Amino acid sequence: RSPRTVRGLASIKPPSSLFAPLDTFPERHIGPDDAEVSKMLSALGYESMDAFVGATVPPKIRVPAASVDNTSIPAVSESQLHARARELGGQNKLFKSYIGMGYHSAVVPPVILRNVMENPAWYTPYTPYQPEIAQGRLESLINFQTMVMSLTSMDIANASMLDEATAAAEGMVMAFVSASSKKKTFLVDSGVSPQTLAVLHTRAKGFGINVVTGNVFALLEDETLRSGICGVLIQYPDVNGTIKDFTSLSKKVHSLGGLVICATDLLALTKLKPPGEWGADVVVGNSARFGVPAGYGGPHAAFFAVTDRLKRKMPGRLIGRSRDTQGKPAYRLSLQTREQHIRREKATSNICTSQALLANMAAMYAVYHGPVGLLRIADKVHKFTQVFKTSVEAMGYKSENQVFFDTVTLDVSGTAVGNAHNVHAAAEAAGINLRHIDESHIGVTFDESVSPADLVALLDVFASGAKVSTVSLSDLAEPKTSAIPESLQRTSEYLSHPVFNKHHSETEMLRYIHHLASKDLGLVHAMIPLGSCTMKLNSTSSMIPLTWPEFSNVHPFVPYDQVKGYRTIIKELEDDLCRITGFAAASLQPNSGAAGEYAGLSVIKAYHESRGEGQREVCLIPLSAHGTNPASAAMAGLKVVAVKVHSDGNLDLEDLKTKAEKHKDQLAAFMITYPSTFGVFEAGVQAACKIIHDNGGQVYLDGANLNAQIGLTNPATCGGDVCHMNLHKTFAIPHGGGGPGVGPICVAEHLAPFLPSHPAMPEKGELSIDAVSAAPFGSASINVISWAYIKMLGGQGLVDSSKIALLNANYMASRLAPHYTLRYKNENGRVAHELLIDLAEFDKAAGLKVTDFAKRLQDYGFHPPTCSWPIATCMLIEPTESETLEELDRFCDAMIQIRHEAEDIITGKQPKDNNLLKNAPHPVSVMTLSDSEWNRPYSRQTAAYPLPWLHEKKFWPTVSRIDDAYGDLNLICDCPSVEEMTS
Amino acid sequence: RSPRTVRGLASIKPPSSLFAPLDTFPERHIGPDDAEVSKMLSALGYESMDAFVGATVPPKIRVPAASVDNTSIPAVSESQLHARARELGGQNKLFKSYIGMGYHSAVVPPVILRNVMENPAWYTPYTPYQPEIAQGRLESLINFQTMVMSLTSMDIANASMLDEATAAAEGMVMAFVSASSKKKTFLVDSGVSPQTLAVLHTRAKGFGINVVTGNVFALLEDETLRSGICGVLIQYPDVNGTIKDFTSLSKKVHSLGGLVICATDLLALTKLKPPGEWGADVVVGNSARFGVPAGYGGPHAAFFAVTDRLKRKMPGRLIGRSRDTQGKPAYRLSLQTREQHIRREKATSNICTSQALLANMAAMYAVYHGPVGLLRIADKVHKFTQVFKTSVEAMGYKSENQVFFDTVTLDVSGTAVGNAHNVHAAAEAAGINLRHIDESHIGVTFDESVSPADLVALLDVFASGAKVSTVSLSDLAEPKTSAIPESLQRTSEYLSHPVFNKHHSETEMLRYIHHLASKDLGLVHAMIPLGSCTMKLNSTSSMIPLTWPEFSNVHPFVPYDQVKGYRTIIKELEDDLCRITGFAAASLQPNSGAAGEYAGLSVIKAYHESRGEGQREVCLIPLSAHGTNPASAAMAGLKVVAVKVHSDGNLDLEDLKTKAEKHKDQLAAFMITYPSTFGVFEAGVQAACKIIHDNGGQVYLDGANLNAQIGLTNPATCGGDVCHMNLHKTFAIPHGGGGPGVGPICVAEHLAPFLPSHPAMPEKGELSIDAVSAAPFGSASINVISWAYIKMLGGQGLVDSSKIALLNANYMASRLAPHYTLRYKNENGRVAHELLIDLAEFDKAAGLKVTDFAKRLQDYGFHPPTCSWPIATCMLIEPTESETLEELDRFCDAMIQIRHEAEDIITGKQPKDNNLLKNAPHPVSVMTLSDSEWNRPYSRQTAAYPLPWLHEKKFWPTVSRIDDAYGDLNLICDCPSVEEMTS
Ligand SMILES: Cc1ncc(COP(=O)(O)O)c(C=O)c1O
Ligand SMILES: Cc1ncc(COP(=O)(O)O)c(C=O)c1O
Ligand SMILES: O=C([O-])O
Repeated sequence: RSPRTVRGLASIKPPSSLFAPLDTFPERHIGPDDAEVSKMLSALGYESMDAFVGATVPPKIRVPAASVDNTSIPAVSESQLHARARELGGQNKLFKSYIGMGYHSAVVPPVILRNVMENPAWYTPYTPYQPEIAQGRLESLINFQTMVMSLTSMDIANASMLDEATAAAEGMVMAFVSASSKKKTFLVDSGVSPQTLAVLHTRAKGFGINVVTGNVFALLEDETLRSGICGVLIQYPDVNGTIKDFTSLSKKVHSLGGLVICATDLLALTKLKPPGEWGADVVVGNSARFGVPAGYGGPHAAFFAVTDRLKRKMPGRLIGRSRDTQGKPAYRLSLQTREQHIRREKATSNICTSQALLANMAAMYAVYHGPVGLLRIADKVHKFTQVFKTSVEAMGYKSENQVFFDTVTLDVSGTAVGNAHNVHAAAEAAGINLRHIDESHIGVTFDESVSPADLVALLDVFASGAKVSTVSLSDLAEPKTSAIPESLQRTSEYLSHPVFNKHHSETEMLRYIHHLASKDLGLVHAMIPLGSCTMKLNSTSSMIPLTWPEFSNVHPFVPYDQVKGYRTIIKELEDDLCRITGFAAASLQPNSGAAGEYAGLSVIKAYHESRGEGQREVCLIPLSAHGTNPASAAMAGLKVVAVKVHSDGNLDLEDLKTKAEKHKDQLAAFMITYPSTFGVFEAGVQAACKIIHDNGGQVYLDGANLNAQIGLTNPATCGGDVCHMNLHKTFAIPHGGGGPGVGPICVAEHLAPFLPSHPAMPEKGELSIDAVSAAPFGSASINVISWAYIKMLGGQGLVDSSKIALLNANYMASRLAPHYTLRYKNENGRVAHELLIDLAEFDKAAGLKVTDFAKRLQDYGFHPPTCSWPIATCMLIEPTESETLEELDRFCDAMIQIRHEAEDIITGKQPKDNNLLKNAPHPVSVMTLSDSEWNRPYSRQTAAYPLPWLHEKKFWPTVSRIDDAYGDLNLICDCPSVEEMTS
Repeated sequence: RSPRTVRGLASIKPPSSLFAPLDTFPERHIGPDDAEVSKMLSALGYESMDAFVGATVPPKIRVPAASVDNTSIPAVSESQLHARARELGGQNKLFKSYIGMGYHSAVVPPVILRNVMENPAWYTPYTPYQPEIAQGRLESLINFQTMVMSLTSMDIANASMLDEATAAAEGMVMAFVSASSKKKTFLVDSGVSPQTLAVLHTRAKGFGINVVTGNVFALLEDETLRSGICGVLIQYPDVNGTIKDFTSLSKKVHSLGGLVICATDLLALTKLKPPGEWGADVVVGNSARFGVPAGYGGPHAAFFAVTDRLKRKMPGRLIGRSRDTQGKPAYRLSLQTREQHIRREKATSNICTSQALLANMAAMYAVYHGPVGLLRIADKVHKFTQVFKTSVEAMGYKSENQVFFDTVTLDVSGTAVGNAHNVHAAAEAAGINLRHIDESHIGVTFDESVSPADLVALLDVFASGAKVSTVSLSDLAEPKTSAIPESLQRTSEYLSHPVFNKHHSETEMLRYIHHLASKDLGLVHAMIPLGSCTMKLNSTSSMIPLTWPEFSNVHPFVPYDQVKGYRTIIKELEDDLCRITGFAAASLQPNSGAAGEYAGLSVIKAYHESRGEGQREVCLIPLSAHGTNPASAAMAGLKVVAVKVHSDGNLDLEDLKTKAEKHKDQLAAFMITYPSTFGVFEAGVQAACKIIHDNGGQVYLDGANLNAQIGLTNPATCGGDVCHMNLHKTFAIPHGGGGPGVGPICVAEHLAPFLPSHPAMPEKGELSIDAVSAAPFGSASINVISWAYIKMLGGQGLVDSSKIALLNANYMASRLAPHYTLRYKNENGRVAHELLIDLAEFDKAAGLKVTDFAKRLQDYGFHPPTCSWPIATCMLIEPTESETLEELDRFCDAMIQIRHEAEDIITGKQPKDNNLLKNAPHPVSVMTLSDSEWNRPYSRQTAAYPLPWLHEKKFWPTVSRIDDAYGDLNLICDCPSVEEMTS
């Protein structure tokens, strides 16, 4: 028989018994089948997988097979996983929540749900570092920025933040670093949400900022504070619903040299005078109510907008407009320089992965509804709130606030119901959640999802509390006036850009979504071999439960007994992550890798402090480390000391030792990535960790490369005390075109007591650090993806995945080595799960840069590997286990063909300035140039179809190479206006 | 403010009250907003919509506004619809079904579910009549054909049939027409499924075939029958599970000059000697268990495979391989000539819309599993059945069949349980359905979805019936031998084509699915203005409930009390359709428009017979009718008499009258499409119907154009007695790239008693005709789409949709009229919902054919309108209400620009043989030709970007114009083989 008989390492054998399921996941997740594995092993000269792994992973650090196997993590099939997810989903109670505090039941327009959130063309791509094959999501992110700028009336906004609390913390730090070094006091209004306050407390610590909470108006009058104020944070509307006029307060803060940071709500801003009009310097908030499911806390996109003078200090990613080499308008990531790779320990923010997918959903929501639609929604929310307030007041309840948008705080003391507890009990019996404030106060927040029947049911709860008769809909009169005083009402227009006023029919919206998607290269097209990013399959099975209402429609602050399903998933995921890392406890709160680093280092700091060693502030970090490492260390209040690395990527153990001993008494931590950022399994890792421990420090292991380790070694065995994982790398959460991410940390036993707490968690450990993100379990809903991934692979599948990840990388290394300079291999000739090739020679020989190779790869239909990191002249290539041999070969063939093209340039057959690489990429529009315009010493065919398979399947970049210099000079970060569109 | 303030006719006013929902559907469904409507009305010279409609629809046939309005059909919002669908879904009980009879719980691979079934790029396109922009689904349909050919071992297979029963009926008819005219007896084995038999009975009537049922082996020995036999139908395995060797039987049938039609099961064929190896001439079956949800009966793809000598007689659509003008391989629809447009009343099949989307799902399932995966599944199913049989035999039950694949029939009489009724009662109490056969027999069929726990639960039912102790999984031994005798086992290989042995990892599968999708133009890209096809929005909201298990995982023959939700939806949909058509009763059984025609005419025939007027066999049909009309009439046993039409499309009433009177005593029916196929609201329709009624006939109204009528007129008012609707046109079921469809009929009171029955319906009316399709409610699951569509639009939204459909068409007519010859307008200058332009002049002037214009439209990113029908030199353009003015203008601009291009050819500026139209379409590959190869008297820019907006958004055909002559000469209908791929 000609057909291949089996696929995938895990499927070598037929089903183990008649009663074993057939829809097993490992054979679908792992790309190479048995035949391919054998072929690769023999290409590398190994008789068996074991021999190969033995030569690749240092024996000293290997862990027993039993550490991760099907006994410890039993594999379930895809349909079994769904059955289990349904069962657990059923244990999450779908109460109607009026808790508010920044979280709402969003109404996701179905066309966006299905065509963005559930569409792999949107959720599988990477951060748009390669703009020529990412114009779709770049345009959408520009829409997001424009939406934020327009609604807040600020000059510039970035392309999303992790959540409102961390965005507020970034604002605080911006105020701190903008002010003179003596100004260390940051005022936080008591109307700020408690989760934001908690995150501010954590973040303030590292920077030495003095956070003072209270009524900001009063605090500003306090002479003892005034001179030290670097900024204030106010919330508008505040967490209790009140809306205050901050115009004069802003003037006062400015006169003191401080910044005004305003946390706000985009929907409210359709009706409220925007912060940009009354003096805010920084405006932050969360865009989740624009059509992003609550998901028990996230993910969703927060935003960050500033006045023009602060724009070059903004954290995060900023999309800008530029032009391509043909002079056509094109989008790109601007101001990447602000990211931590450049500033390292001088960075004041470590944000890297953000929330692109969710920002795109929110932007699409604004595109779909437009200004009029948003106002209709805001009006409804506002009026429902008014009707509610009027009705309960008629029953005898007292409202604390008369001015509001969507939230009222009620004082229930002195009413028939007696106290808040009784109201909550009645509400819960009716399937309703209200905000718990204190014994006598209750918060009630309305959102778009509240139906008239919901409102009546809610009023019934209050009526029965007040012992009055229930109301019916016909009793409820539509309010005639607004509860927002005229002086606070918005008069300026918003979202007048054409994009928000065009795609309002579903057909148009659908076409817009698909049109943008068609410009972007994702995993639906080809391998994305981004080193350090682990772009593996994001399986449909693991994505499906995510958008079930039982997971998506849960407020993060509901009582624990309503989320038994979520809690089981969280517990199981934590347990599995501990098993995989060899650690004792985990926290899923950090919502990105960088947030995990920050959390882990803060835990280490707290540990030292608990032992009276608060002076331990030095953090050793190799020069080769990812830029987030030093940035995170600095944010956690550590002083970074750089450790040298050898040119092959290995740590300079001598230097490490010297520095550890030198800083013996101050040594807090050592941060190390394993395998290293060079793709190196350093045999000396345990020795390095021992040096640190011997000198009183703790070891932080950056787990970005955990995919190389599972079941073969683990961070604990390597010698670490803490590690973070990127669930959006190793554990198959899609990258979403630049986020979401989840960066949980696992810690050794002795650090467990210090893991982050959260105001919404029932108890706070005595030693716990404060919250590091806005929701108790971070981006909780997408944990379901990693949970499903782990359970479906099972222990064996996880280990096999790591093995194949190593094999795929080594196979590629062996194919490319004759053509390119491989920067590192171990004594057996092996790399880890990724390979680093150095292109420096081409620059020397012919002025060809890494970028030229990268852009030319686009012409071959591939997303280029990670470029110029960790070494400026290199490419870091990571295939992952999900790619088949055929795909690896396709990529290698492309690289080799480009090598030939380069040779022609080196030998002078092709000119140095006008050639296939320098002119790459070649979009279709270039193909249609007239003969005179074409003007290149090679044919269109050679440009477009350098290898035969491109005739059958080719992804076309939609623009020519983007002019970065032009973009840097002309920083424009919003959509084109009507005038520009028509000019 | 610059933003437009409102969208869509239904949203002229702000929400009617605070308590009105905001996520209302009409404003999303209807493309033009208020401003656009006003603009179009004034372009046409009307002050109001009423004035426009008044001038467009003949006053005589108008119906009162109250006939369809928000009182009779209240509008619900999108979220309200989902809430209601959840509630009704909850009323469908998810029992585990072992009923079999051709229906199974399919396990849909998640990657296919989400990326094909739930992906508008796959479900919105039309039948691939324009192959250059449909290479993706053409390739997939070739995969389907190859899969069927390979598994059945037949020479050729078509691209799907509506269901197994109608496919079997087509086989019977093929046997009938292939044989000498004296052979009218068709034998049907008693092992054939009852629903197939019922459909054969219906179908046999019209052709005068004598269906004889019984044991075919015995029947063939019957001397009285032998000489008249044209064919036999056998089922393999049969409905009771038995598998017989039909080798000698086939020889016998052949020696009698008959055809052997075999109904079979694709999964069984992985293990059984295929029918092509033992002599079958025609093989039919249903591919639903290949990953297509049961959906309470459908849709799913049936198949039809024949030996080479029968290939040119096959019904349905056949995809073939050909090449394009550049000589590249390319797919296309072959043998379209066999469709009814050409053969009309000589056609023996009326199938038009088939089941493309579901065929693609089944084909993708085979691509995903490959031969080995399918065999694994078949082995599991077979062994579970063996384990079950062994276990229940040990409990004392008797099996009727010892040879089987997945089904056993048990005789429960004489066991402790006593009778079948008691077994069913116990099973139902355990949430299990078994097949009801009779008092002592029960059928049990296994499928891929049965888990070990399910098996144990099933055995428990039997154990308790037998009063023996229950079994546990560990008691169950894996069978060592097969229950299929060696002589019946398959030895030949199958699915050895590369496509079935490549895409087995999810990543590869995902890329294959998206790669194919990227070649096809659908509604996600642009307007598809296909006249007579009503390509409107297929809203996400209406699609979402479809794939909930509560709707998708329901066997069609479960007891009514398990499908309360479905029954409510069916009832509500029937009621609304009656309201809309003005009729009294409906049947949702027909699963295409053509099937509806056939059902409706059969009803008319039965009516006449019931009145003792069985001689009424003449059916008058205008020459302009769709080809399915005469074909359906012929199939229903009617004699077609053509009625003339005037050149403007209006009926020749004189001719009608003459013929009606001439055939007075034989007059059965008159078929008319309204508005006519010319897009004409004929004022004389009532007069025409009166002529028919006066002469004893009934009027059949083809409702393909119902979108022009809703709430303005209706088929009853026009004078009809029966009509069918195309729910896949007027009521927004997606076309799926060539199916599924639903073609329900509505009838006047006097015809209600004759509506189709079905063996699975609890009662059969005395006068009912037999079944017309395999399931009682046809393609039941997709009725949910139309139900949702109607409920979300509400009466007002439905009427507004029709109005805007008329307005859009008239606006386009007014824009195109200065440039093209509009074939028809009424006395007020108005067309109906579509317009017919005549291109004859261009052929005369410059040899430019309709096809040349159509292919050039592809270069502008549009799907061409319906070409050369109903008039060879015309294009029929139907925009629907879902397109915005901007899109209409884009299309008109393209048509006008093409007119200019044609002018250059007419005037000789461009040569007649080498020009933009003749060379169209221009795929990217042509752009990359070298300058010498390019060799055209126009630039690449002019070819690719004739209008400016194409620079921003352009859909590229993937091949050049396809060489039909070559394809006709070389009929190749399977995938390329390994050899061809590598040559
Ligand atoms: C080695 C390393 N550490 C940390 C990070 C930061 O992770 P995140 O982007 O999730 O914040 C990355 C991200 O690429 C990384 O590669
Ligand atoms: C006028 C008319 N009648 C009947 C039909 C047949 O409908 P179906 O393709 O659903 O069988 C069509 C299909 O396009 C049609 O246009
Ligand atoms: O499909 C049609 O024949 O219109």
